[in-house]
Amino acid sequence: MTKDKQAKAIPGTRVTVSSPASIANFVCGFDVLGMALNSPDDLMHVQLSETPGIRIQHLDDHQLPAIPEQNVAGVSLMALMQELNMPVGFDISINKRIKPGSGLGSSAASAAGIVVAANHLLGSIFTKEDLVRFAMSGEKLASGVKHADNIAPCIYGGVTLIRSIFPLDVIPLSSPLMYITVVHPQIEVKTSDSRQILRKEVLLKDAIRQWGNIAGLVTGLLKNDYDIISRSLEDVIIEPVRSILIPGFDEVKSKSKEAGAMGGGIAGSGPSIFMLSREKNTAIEVEDEIKVIFNKIGIAYNTYVTTINQHGVRIMESDMEVDSLDTRVTHNL
Amino acid sequence: MTKDKQAKAIPGTRVTVSSPASIANFVCGFDVLGMALNSPDDLMHVQLSETPGIRIQHLDDHQLPAIPEQNVAGVSLMALMQELNMPVGFDISINKRIKPGSGLGSSAASAAGIVVAANHLLGSIFTKEDLVRFAMSGEKLASGVKHADNIAPCIYGGVTLIRSIFPLDVIPLSSPLMYITVVHPQIEVKTSDSRQILRKEVLLKDAIRQWGNIAGLVTGLLKNDYDIISRSLEDVIIEPVRSILIPGFDEVKSKSKEAGAMGGGIAGSGPSIFMLSREKNTAIEVEDEIKVIFNKIGIAYNTYVTTINQHGVRIMESDMEVDSLDTRVTHNL
Repeated sequence: MTKDKQAKAIPGTRVTVSSPASIANFVCGFDVLGMALNSPDDLMHVQLSETPGIRIQHLDDHQLPAIPEQNVAGVSLMALMQELNMPVGFDISINKRIKPGSGLGSSAASAAGIVVAANHLLGSIFTKEDLVRFAMSGEKLASGVKHADNIAPCIYGGVTLIRSIFPLDVIPLSSPLMYITVVHPQIEVKTSDSRQILRKEVLLKDAIRQWGNIAGLVTGLLKNDYDIISRSLEDVIIEPVRSILIPGFDEVKSKSKEAGAMGGGIAGSGPSIFMLSREKNTAIEVEDEIKVIFNKIGIAYNTYVTTINQHGVRIMESDMEVDSLDTRVTHNL
Repeated sequence: MTKDKQAKAIPGTRVTVSSPASIANFVCGFDVLGMALNSPDDLMHVQLSETPGIRIQHLDDHQLPAIPEQNVAGVSLMALMQELNMPVGFDISINKRIKPGSGLGSSAASAAGIVVAANHLLGSIFTKEDLVRFAMSGEKLASGVKHADNIAPCIYGGVTLIRSIFPLDVIPLSSPLMYITVVHPQIEVKTSDSRQILRKEVLLKDAIRQWGNIAGLVTGLLKNDYDIISRSLEDVIIEPVRSILIPGFDEVKSKSKEAGAMGGGIAGSGPSIFMLSREKNTAIEVEDEIKVIFNKIGIAYNTYVTTINQHGVRIMESDMEVDSLDTRVTHNL
């Protein structure tokens, strides 16, 4: 918590936030690199209440739990309230537009969205790092593992490096304009299953190749060098194992590259796949190629063509004064 | 070879180059990250001759082979001459001031120095990438493995990322001013032995920690952020195994950090150890601490306090016209 700020809680105050989808396991950046997307997003309406406790209402039909202890947003908010130590309540309505189980950080959007919204209503007393910590409790409920590679980009915006979880070290990275084509095949791949099929040991020579690639990817991002980014978009460790669970993966990748994509991979733990392009037209052509593939396979799917969300969770409407809008996290690198 | 340049070879033309020591396996950057140092260096005098063949003379007492096929510089030059296809000879005198087996890239200095010198005498017809390729043949003779993480910084200057060996992908990285304290304990650690003690498999969780760190290190270097560099100077895979071969390693590291060093590790495959500091005074204090440790252990040693060599191999004296001095590689990032 920042020392110079005092929590204020005026019952009835409302805020609406847009919380972004995100892509973790950014190709060679398994568990350490993630990015926020401009679409899809979740909308969350949050109101301070005199009545202590957390009340959750769902405006969608995803059948997610409404009991706070079983809900990702609920658990994240409880972590925040534990450090707050104020008798305050929250009424939350969630319109979840990022499908759970898509690999696009649906649970992270809930976790990050609620803590940014609550912090805003309380007068922005917590730091971004605090917010990441709170939201990680929610992620733990969703996947069994306290990871931050979806949460951090949701809160900081852009591409973020989680150099370390214990202690938490989030490093925001700048990145050039890129278009992202995402396909979400409507099949179920559970994060926990998708973790279990990974081998606990990897070949040293593969690990070396991987850290050469992530070093290259980070260099390309920071230097706005599309060629270096393209050459570095290679994952020799996770993708060969996990892509087996995703029908059409290899074809999506090869056809996308033929259409001009720089490269891409599995979004999070799948089943969504993402491809990066320099130009919008290319990203749309890539989308067309992907549609052909999934129509042929006969699996229902959604596609998105979007860009990197450099702001993270956005305050859309607020009863708070404008100068309290400093949770509107801006991209500072 | 660059297409617009024609090799010229005027018998009798001479050049003297300074070829730098270098540190490969830059902490978490095993096999992919290296940097050139401003000291120590080797001096090489090279003269074009009408008499075909390579003649090597040693001006030092390291007892290195003079037969070209058995000499690192000889083999590297032979690789260059194979692509040259010109009946030309070279007389080479080497004053090797970087001790063989120190872990400070002694063989890379010979390999890089000779190909830069020869290229200069031939009218700078080869690209830096060509020169790295030729010099890698020399490294293969020295260590049995074709690696480039000492060669590339010698030729490009500064810190270089070898994203990939096959195909070769060298990415020069900018870096902030840092002072490097090096200690070379006079014990023998063979590169080949030091490779053999490494496990062929590593834990996935350690590999993840390592690629978080190398991503952090690269970010810190490119953004001139000393704090990020410091936090990222951690090697959880190679150092715990190899440091066992180096007496005093743990104490050197802990005392150096107490004295203010940012961090450091094993230089190459050892036995030299290097520590990075922001300030010259700190680097000298670190040197003092290290001297105390090795005096106590009773092993002979050399120490150096130096900076990153941003130029790579330098032309010191040349009979060539000044406008041919474009092998004087400059730091271009």
